[in-house]
Amino acid sequence: MDLFDALKNRYSHKEGFLPDPVPLDDLEKIAQAGLDAPNGGNLQTVRLIILPDKASVAPVCAVVPTIGLETAPAAIAVLTDSVLAQTAPVEGTFEKEDYSAAVTQMLLAAAGLGYASLWLDSPYFDPARQKEAVAALGAPDSYHLWAVLPVGKPDGTGSRRTKMEFNERVSYIRFGGKK
Amino acid sequence: MDLFDALKNRYSHKEGFLPDPVPLDDLEKIAQAGLDAPNGGNLQTVRLIILPDKASVAPVCAVVPTIGLETAPAAIAVLTDSVLAQTAPVEGTFEKEDYSAAVTQMLLAAAGLGYASLWLDSPYFDPARQKEAVAALGAPDSYHLWAVLPVGKPDGTGSRRTKMEFNERVSYIRFGGKK
Repeated sequence: MDLFDALKNRYSHKEGFLPDPVPLDDLEKIAQAGLDAPNGGNLQTVRLIILPDKASVAPVCAVVPTIGLETAPAAIAVLTDSVLAQTAPVEGTFEKEDYSAAVTQMLLAAAGLGYASLWLDSPYFDPARQKEAVAALGAPDSYHLWAVLPVGKPDGTGSRRTKMEFNERVSYIRFGGKK
Repeated sequence: MDLFDALKNRYSHKEGFLPDPVPLDDLEKIAQAGLDAPNGGNLQTVRLIILPDKASVAPVCAVVPTIGLETAPAAIAVLTDSVLAQTAPVEGTFEKEDYSAAVTQMLLAAAGLGYASLWLDSPYFDPARQKEAVAALGAPDSYHLWAVLPVGKPDGTGSRRTKMEFNERVSYIRFGGKK
């Protein structure tokens, strides 16, 4: 798919998915798009877990059930190695930037392959659920789970959120400058 | 350009740019890709300033000169409205996620149109320089400048950073699980 078509087609699918399986090859293409993302200091802190079927999605879905993970035929969990991230030559880490760039590229790749997906992060904000979800995925305590992306064919058209106009958010030459 | 070609072609261009101007239409396509990015709670906190020529890049470049901004024929400054961001229904804000997703999509769009670019954030980490750069762009104090992306034709092939292998970063079914 053309890049600009993928940019237009991607949306946050907050509804359910059809049960049709997603070929592993497609999940690996999506994961590769995540690995190809820009990252701070080339530390490559992002780690992915491909959950290729409903059985492998179930443990992390059980922590906080959502319509997306309950129905998705596959998903990709997005973690960072927080120990590695601490070696960044800045105050703090680039974990949020790194994971966000990886998720953004994976959502585009999913759209480009004809799937719907969602940046599903809120279930893991709570520290107790974060710990439980990391354990459910078999990851060490030193890893942070940022999001789990359900992947599949949408069970409907999905609702698009309305967006502000271009000129409400973009200036020219200086802040507030018009074309 | 095909999405997956753009994902492969994008790289962090840390060298200089040729002086050839970038058509405004291309800069607007890149900005639109940023606006199309996923964002937390649809608050749309990201604001962009198109710097369409060397004269408009100069003030922000003067704050912290870098080879990219010194040579780039155009750039896009990436800010967030930090007051708006505070209305997010979570502890903290989604500013880092929002700006990172927007930058990621803009870097892809630049690559897709045949340009090189760079996620140039480090000049603005220092609070004094942050304040100075926000003022140089004419933005209110309540806005945060996260990055300025130089855009242009590269003055050479550019150096690519080496990346870990797929299987060093991707697991199957559970953390550490092999295919």
